[in-house]
Amino acid sequence: MTSSRADGLFSGTFSRGGAAAEVSDSGWLAAMLDAEAALAAAQAELGLIPAGAAEAVAKACDPGLYDLAELGHRAGPAGNPVIPLVAALRERVEPGLRRYVHHGATSQDVNDTAAMLVACRALVPILADLAASAEACARLAAEHRGTLMAGRTVLQHAVPITFGLKAAGWLSALDRARELLTGLDLPVQYGGAAGTLSVLGGRGHEVLPLLAAELELAEPLLPWHTDRTPVAELACALGVASGVLGKIATDVKLLAQTEVGEAAEPQAPGRGGSSAMPHKRNPVGAMSVLACVQRVPGLVASVLGGMAQEHERAAGPWQAEWETLGELLRLTGSAAAWLGEVLEGLTVDAARMRANLGTTRGLLMAERAVAVLGGSPEARAAVDAACARAVADGLSLREALLATPGAELEPEELDAALDPAGHLGSAGVFVDRVLGRAGGEG
Amino acid sequence: MTSSRADGLFSGTFSRGGAAAEVSDSGWLAAMLDAEAALAAAQAELGLIPAGAAEAVAKACDPGLYDLAELGHRAGPAGNPVIPLVAALRERVEPGLRRYVHHGATSQDVNDTAAMLVACRALVPILADLAASAEACARLAAEHRGTLMAGRTVLQHAVPITFGLKAAGWLSALDRARELLTGLDLPVQYGGAAGTLSVLGGRGHEVLPLLAAELELAEPLLPWHTDRTPVAELACALGVASGVLGKIATDVKLLAQTEVGEAAEPQAPGRGGSSAMPHKRNPVGAMSVLACVQRVPGLVASVLGGMAQEHERAAGPWQAEWETLGELLRLTGSAAAWLGEVLEGLTVDAARMRANLGTTRGLLMAERAVAVLGGSPEARAAVDAACARAVADGLSLREALLATPGAELEPEELDAALDPAGHLGSAGVFVDRVLGRAGGEG
Amino acid sequence: MTSSRADGLFSGTFSRGGAAAEVSDSGWLAAMLDAEAALAAAQAELGLIPAGAAEAVAKACDPGLYDLAELGHRAGPAGNPVIPLVAALRERVEPGLRRYVHHGATSQDVNDTAAMLVACRALVPILADLAASAEACARLAAEHRGTLMAGRTVLQHAVPITFGLKAAGWLSALDRARELLTGLDLPVQYGGAAGTLSVLGGRGHEVLPLLAAELELAEPLLPWHTDRTPVAELACALGVASGVLGKIATDVKLLAQTEVGEAAEPQAPGRGGSSAMPHKRNPVGAMSVLACVQRVPGLVASVLGGMAQEHERAAGPWQAEWETLGELLRLTGSAAAWLGEVLEGLTVDAARMRANLGTTRGLLMAERAVAVLGGSPEARAAVDAACARAVADGLSLREALLATPGAELEPEELDAALDPAGHLGSAGVFVDRVLGRAGGEG
Amino acid sequence: MTSSRADGLFSGTFSRGGAAAEVSDSGWLAAMLDAEAALAAAQAELGLIPAGAAEAVAKACDPGLYDLAELGHRAGPAGNPVIPLVAALRERVEPGLRRYVHHGATSQDVNDTAAMLVACRALVPILADLAASAEACARLAAEHRGTLMAGRTVLQHAVPITFGLKAAGWLSALDRARELLTGLDLPVQYGGAAGTLSVLGGRGHEVLPLLAAELELAEPLLPWHTDRTPVAELACALGVASGVLGKIATDVKLLAQTEVGEAAEPQAPGRGGSSAMPHKRNPVGAMSVLACVQRVPGLVASVLGGMAQEHERAAGPWQAEWETLGELLRLTGSAAAWLGEVLEGLTVDAARMRANLGTTRGLLMAERAVAVLGGSPEARAAVDAACARAVADGLSLREALLATPGAELEPEELDAALDPAGHLGSAGVFVDRVLGRAGGEG
Repeated sequence: MTSSRADGLFSGTFSRGGAAAEVSDSGWLAAMLDAEAALAAAQAELGLIPAGAAEAVAKACDPGLYDLAELGHRAGPAGNPVIPLVAALRERVEPGLRRYVHHGATSQDVNDTAAMLVACRALVPILADLAASAEACARLAAEHRGTLMAGRTVLQHAVPITFGLKAAGWLSALDRARELLTGLDLPVQYGGAAGTLSVLGGRGHEVLPLLAAELELAEPLLPWHTDRTPVAELACALGVASGVLGKIATDVKLLAQTEVGEAAEPQAPGRGGSSAMPHKRNPVGAMSVLACVQRVPGLVASVLGGMAQEHERAAGPWQAEWETLGELLRLTGSAAAWLGEVLEGLTVDAARMRANLGTTRGLLMAERAVAVLGGSPEARAAVDAACARAVADGLSLREALLATPGAELEPEELDAALDPAGHLGSAGVFVDRVLGRAGGEG
Repeated sequence: MTSSRADGLFSGTFSRGGAAAEVSDSGWLAAMLDAEAALAAAQAELGLIPAGAAEAVAKACDPGLYDLAELGHRAGPAGNPVIPLVAALRERVEPGLRRYVHHGATSQDVNDTAAMLVACRALVPILADLAASAEACARLAAEHRGTLMAGRTVLQHAVPITFGLKAAGWLSALDRARELLTGLDLPVQYGGAAGTLSVLGGRGHEVLPLLAAELELAEPLLPWHTDRTPVAELACALGVASGVLGKIATDVKLLAQTEVGEAAEPQAPGRGGSSAMPHKRNPVGAMSVLACVQRVPGLVASVLGGMAQEHERAAGPWQAEWETLGELLRLTGSAAAWLGEVLEGLTVDAARMRANLGTTRGLLMAERAVAVLGGSPEARAAVDAACARAVADGLSLREALLATPGAELEPEELDAALDPAGHLGSAGVFVDRVLGRAGGEG
Repeated sequence: MTSSRADGLFSGTFSRGGAAAEVSDSGWLAAMLDAEAALAAAQAELGLIPAGAAEAVAKACDPGLYDLAELGHRAGPAGNPVIPLVAALRERVEPGLRRYVHHGATSQDVNDTAAMLVACRALVPILADLAASAEACARLAAEHRGTLMAGRTVLQHAVPITFGLKAAGWLSALDRARELLTGLDLPVQYGGAAGTLSVLGGRGHEVLPLLAAELELAEPLLPWHTDRTPVAELACALGVASGVLGKIATDVKLLAQTEVGEAAEPQAPGRGGSSAMPHKRNPVGAMSVLACVQRVPGLVASVLGGMAQEHERAAGPWQAEWETLGELLRLTGSAAAWLGEVLEGLTVDAARMRANLGTTRGLLMAERAVAVLGGSPEARAAVDAACARAVADGLSLREALLATPGAELEPEELDAALDPAGHLGSAGVFVDRVLGRAGGEG
Repeated sequence: MTSSRADGLFSGTFSRGGAAAEVSDSGWLAAMLDAEAALAAAQAELGLIPAGAAEAVAKACDPGLYDLAELGHRAGPAGNPVIPLVAALRERVEPGLRRYVHHGATSQDVNDTAAMLVACRALVPILADLAASAEACARLAAEHRGTLMAGRTVLQHAVPITFGLKAAGWLSALDRARELLTGLDLPVQYGGAAGTLSVLGGRGHEVLPLLAAELELAEPLLPWHTDRTPVAELACALGVASGVLGKIATDVKLLAQTEVGEAAEPQAPGRGGSSAMPHKRNPVGAMSVLACVQRVPGLVASVLGGMAQEHERAAGPWQAEWETLGELLRLTGSAAAWLGEVLEGLTVDAARMRANLGTTRGLLMAERAVAVLGGSPEARAAVDAACARAVADGLSLREALLATPGAELEPEELDAALDPAGHLGSAGVFVDRVLGRAGGEG
């Protein structure tokens, strides 16, 4: 039997998408065995161990042969799960070849290499889900390049924007998150007891490029047992990606508010309902993204805080990375999966966006009115006065401008001044810049 | 059935002790069902629902009847696991009584109450393991009240202390951690859709004291759906307790260093060995404590950062608490279990402590020599000169003092001045103060 | 001269209230000198140093005599600011008495005692500002005990609540934060080089109660140089208080949204304006609270993560506390000051609250309609059908119920069912419970 | 004038190096004014404002003209310091040109651009100090390529390594940290009220490349007011760099322990002394590095946690970045400055390293003995038996091997087997690989 976080009571929220399975115990076990098999294969290729030994190891590296709970139980006193795994692996290899199992390696070599493999594999679905979000954003940005809505700063209406611009901003951030994740160098680990590969005489370093090639990981310059920059960079990239997901989910959550109603998440039976309130349509996806990413910065801090590892192997901070790294991948992955669904099925209510633009009775066009009146300090003072009057008397900006000395405009000028579509600045250009970069379709 | 962190690949390190089982999915499910049963019982006692309904609910609240993976799967789109659980629970109650299941409650009522129950139950083994550590410290403090060792500041020998004083300091911190944890008020949650208990007319608040009594939890003044102080206080108390465990483990780790060798962890087959180095005796327990507690501060920050919950129910930060709280309990519990074993079986090498006191050739008695010479600035200057000479020429402090003008003492005075046992100040009194407080045996 | 965070470029946001001055460099210097003077006084009282020495020290402990920048400069290589301060202090005492300055103490004794003094002093304005917020909440809860508004869960309208209930929830959380802060035990520190007070022979511990009394701090059982529970508890209490402040500010921010408009912050010239948008009324206070408290959890984690301090004095984590503790006090204090102003001057728009209740055309009364129809599964099904119809056809719940088979009610029943004031459950009782506890006026 | 963290009571520890001055209030003010001047210059170049206006703005952008405390005071209610700064700046420009000051910009444009400038400027000394550390490591790695010492895992002696290998590991990590910091893209910000640059009609985006060129910052695709990836990446790179500094300082701290004594920090008057213990030589530099970097992960988490910014401008999390970013730069910079000094002046005691290798009486050569005996399971069993005997009877490994059946070797074989210099594996190659990469001198 086993134990992962891929199918538990809270996994509906936190283990969506494909990353959870990769970081499960089964995923780790498979990666550890892959690391052992690749090590033997690389060593056999170099003639450091017999070819038959590598074959025997490869055959024994079948995850179905091992009992996760038993390994976990023995891992506690041993200090890590590789020690009992290697012992179990040796038992599955004929006695004469056992000495070639895990040859010249220390537990951390296998645990770290497995961690990098697990990360690599978990990044595949994460990147796919981020790509889905990005594609949805590109579509939304293109479709809504001219869809007017209120720009909101400090949650107050500011000036008009387009929903396309908002979506382009999301896309730009997602693109950066994807670049960070695809740009990571995840290296194999192989250093032996204290980073010298002493058991292999002077030939241990020759194993590194073959091992890296075998596992499609990067080759490090030297063992990185206590140089945790690869893990820290991975954690940080996941942290930034989570932050991007959280920003978009925040916007969706706010657009879906009862009083705003400009966007809604896709509906499905059993989704977003309330046990007590039959009419509610909760933004479950955005909520779940936010629940996942709320947990990420603390985990990143834990990895960064654990970088001060002692001498050639740490007493605590290294071990603390194991589950933390898995959580970072699982949570970022779940958030990415949720957001992909939210954005792919997002209902955008352009009419409501347009209607909400009128909430301030035109006041969010005040900046524009100043410009139309010439942009002088006097113009600004006049518009300020008109705004004050509008707020005090419940007038529209149009009415207030007409009633304010120094703010008078001809009717057609006034129409132009108060038309949000005429006050979008470079919004369209920005959308095009982002779409052009995202794939040339701008 | 599946999925906890009590029996996984890394659980040997991170799930030691009894807390892991309580925070597993099974633990949560049992707690949620206990909350539903207690709610029905309390309501029946008040006549708000029929007595038969409470009995039917109680009967259906058998964890064995529910499929955790299925609940978890449906919990994702629903937004939390209580929604599918209540649906499944209703199916196990006869149709005519189903309306009395989860009466007047919202999902968060049950989830929060279950969280408090889970915490309460996990605290039992945590407190037991902390008590075991405290008892071991009390024994060590008493036994080693006079065992001399070097006091070390900034990892340099400073002045002599006793190992008893060090153990008394550990004990005092453990006592405070236990006080914090036993002093927590963990309340039930019951507020209905938005905290008014609207469905029960004006009688909902009458349920609170009965529900609290039923579950042996505290009664809140009002629903705390978005006032997360109870959860934050719990997280903080676990954070402080983890910090205390980490402090003691740090000392053990340093005392067990090859070059120091003043303490060693208990040995057992399969414990602390190295796959590559047959002679090593790793401080696996201290290492495991440090691995666990390294992960705690980030989790506490996550809980604190999630306190800014919106209006009457949060969209993300509340949900983020679920697994985080479990992790805090599991990791603190595992650290407590590890430390209990370490301290109960700690081998103290008093001879090595005494020998190490001589590492600086008496220089750590310099402060004492100043005092014996009268404590004047001139005395200090003379001792400073003697110390400089000792360092430069590789002399003992005794030799250097004898050779330094102004630092001359009669032989017997010199013996007295350089005897560490005569320079312990209030060390013994401090040990007695702590032991006296810990249980009166001082 | 100097450098604090009480009057800098960003201090308008982050150094509001009185705590910033207490944690400034001047505040720390004063506290360090107070600690030195109190130590001498306590020792003189015990006859451990001459009375004249204590007088001389007291006289030299005038902050105006010291140059903060110079002390800071020399503190770097020395390792802490107490070393150069003691040297400077000795220079201001006549030569024959200099040996009685800082007698038997180590730098950490003075630094830690000063930290506790600084905390004590900074807590005074923090608690006053929290009390102001609590009083404002109590007033709002009483005044608006019956003011109807939408309860919002996951940012969707749920069921009606009162603004009084919301304010009572704020008050209850504030009360708990105040209890935590007032319940702290902040101890003096006095242990000498390695916690034995060796220089004082066996009498050092007698100094502790006198020193504590002198400074109105708590007396520890033994020196706590590397038992950081007092600092950790302080940090945690500030973390919880900040979380409470953030919760309330979140609600204010959301209530002040352009589309919601149910509450507004007090206005003043130069407050909350935008350089580009003359009509905006930004919730500057809530924003500033949120800016302050966003920074707190990471600082708490830093303190907790630093608890694993080595042996008798730490090499790094102790020093890391100094500024961190100040930041925690300053930021919590600034948030408390901002929130006090916000709540004291909060404009509540009860009419807008009532109007917004209608946003869902009565749908948030669906729960009530189920109850009025008898609460049976059939009733719920009928109301669900009516809600679906209302959503699909843009009907009010009233219209939809009238048109749905099984949901028919007599007109007066319907009026009763759809009246939010009749569906408040125990809201009023909860307000009374909180007010009663807060001061008996419930 | 006032208020930075460059010259305070604790700045000796936390504000070493050049970054502190750049992130001081004066540094921020200068950067804000540079941003305003560059904006005007770029706009004048495009003909968007008169050339004379740009000249007038440039002239008024003299930091000496502004009162930081006054700006800070007014910044609180305004919401940020740019609002009062722009007002003050306008007063210093002739009335007819005032409308061209801060043209089309929002406060965040200037604040964010200034933040990127401040970061750029602070990175100069940080990178210089990291380069100094790297050069010192390269020198140490080359000089000590053959210096034998104990490899230590979990603080226990493992197998021999060289100090050169350790230094090469430090260098490799430092190189990666430098790559991360130099690879950052720090963009200008210019978007106007809500990211559309509405005030400039359709030409606002043309300003971006000129503004970027003027300030030597990067050009963003679109305004990034609520896409905080640039800030988050900066924070993360500083977090990783701090982690690297902390790893090296941890090693130095441990090597400098009284019982180890293999390395010592440079000495100077007033450095690392103790007020109570004249003989101590504290590793003040390593301690200060660790104090600085202890504080960094929480700050990174704060930045990452603040990425979820609302709509077009955030109400809190953006503002929370200001001081946090400065702290990250200051603390990383101080740690880098401290470590540069430590490594440049590090005293390495090769004789002590060699002597300490013997602490385990040859036991750390056990792995080698297994290999020399043929590497078979039988060889391992024999060596295990010899090790057990050595531990039990206090024998050297040599004595124990000679006395253990199956472990007998000829004397010269035994000498070879027990010579640490013959058991260094690829240590030398790894040193060469790192030095080769660092600059080709390997």
